[in-house]
Amino acid sequence: MTGTFHVVGLGPGDPELMTVKAARVIAAAPVVAFFAKRGRTGHARTIAAAQIGPAAEELRFEYPFTTEVVAFYDDCAATLAARLGAGHDAVLLCEGDPFFYGSSMYIFDRLSSVFRSEVVPGVSAMSGCWTSARTPIAHGDDVLTVLPGTLDEDGLAARLQGADAAVIMKIGRNLPKIRAALTRAGLDGRAIYVERGTMAGERIVPVAELDGSPAPYFSIVLVPGRQRVR
Amino acid sequence: MTGTFHVVGLGPGDPELMTVKAARVIAAAPVVAFFAKRGRTGHARTIAAAQIGPAAEELRFEYPFTTEVVAFYDDCAATLAARLGAGHDAVLLCEGDPFFYGSSMYIFDRLSSVFRSEVVPGVSAMSGCWTSARTPIAHGDDVLTVLPGTLDEDGLAARLQGADAAVIMKIGRNLPKIRAALTRAGLDGRAIYVERGTMAGERIVPVAELDGSPAPYFSIVLVPGRQRVR
Repeated sequence: MTGTFHVVGLGPGDPELMTVKAARVIAAAPVVAFFAKRGRTGHARTIAAAQIGPAAEELRFEYPFTTEVVAFYDDCAATLAARLGAGHDAVLLCEGDPFFYGSSMYIFDRLSSVFRSEVVPGVSAMSGCWTSARTPIAHGDDVLTVLPGTLDEDGLAARLQGADAAVIMKIGRNLPKIRAALTRAGLDGRAIYVERGTMAGERIVPVAELDGSPAPYFSIVLVPGRQRVR
Repeated sequence: MTGTFHVVGLGPGDPELMTVKAARVIAAAPVVAFFAKRGRTGHARTIAAAQIGPAAEELRFEYPFTTEVVAFYDDCAATLAARLGAGHDAVLLCEGDPFFYGSSMYIFDRLSSVFRSEVVPGVSAMSGCWTSARTPIAHGDDVLTVLPGTLDEDGLAARLQGADAAVIMKIGRNLPKIRAALTRAGLDGRAIYVERGTMAGERIVPVAELDGSPAPYFSIVLVPGRQRVR
């Protein structure tokens, strides 16, 4: 008998925004794995801290500094496969929603054809952000476009022009380029910047009022849709 | 002392996919309101059934057959305002995520400037669907576009052509038009139809294999992105 592999979404950051199912599955897991940057606790580990059982084996997967992500994901999958093959269930923790820009999907790809695998969806980071900003994002027949801030300025501007509502992720050092694209699309007046949504240190500012400070990883830009029934 | 108004997202349908916070807030509420179609139990009421306290007052808001939605939302808000004004906290249940195409935002608009108001985000219906379909939706630098199926065929096709990944909601009788737009965008081979995601009677079928049967309200079309690190 081999174990079951669970990929578990943890939601946007506030531990109470994980699902009832996520809390149950983590608490029952003999093996709990998570990604972390070198020298950090690991954001997923922090969100799930209260659920992880005292006897659980924890597997910490440290992102490599190199670009060798394929070998890294292979190693992570092999480490989990050893536990699953020995009959232990294992959970891979995942911030936000696993199948929405999550790294855990690469481990799921490697293990789901070999082991019984289950995925628990989570509240996405963007949903946590628009809720914290008290800003409905899309209404009625709005088109919502989700853009990575890593696109070039022309690509961002072109796609923003066709959107009623937009979410831009992966901000960081892309912020000046994103602001330029928002201005070209005529959306700079409606855009809202959210840093560390639902977490300690949360900060919500209209993009037009931002100074030139660099943005951290946990930041997002929201452009709410316009249609409202009043 | 007036009460607090809570808008609570319930997730995609499986009651275990509501957040820990949603379960806590609903269980503590002396007044629980929900939308329902005439003659139906109300989908939100069904998801939250196990959390609603035995002594809670339930407010059932029946969607009107007419197009008088503004007056309807005004009435709903007035009914809630009476309880809040008398000092009772009140919860408005909302399927999925409240600020993502949810009707509850119209009640929030009416009450949040008068009463202390809180929103609990939820797992979106689309997230429940791509998880049930075991299909990661977006990766790396993918652009994701969320489209209402109510757009005309030209509008759908144009927006699908610019997307790496797409979600089409509000399917129902729009299904033939949506299939035509997917074909024009060259995406018909990748598209997946999900009916009643995470709920009893869930059905997941490649769009190319669908017969001409009409789609129910709880259906969605997913076009997964293509970028994968293997």
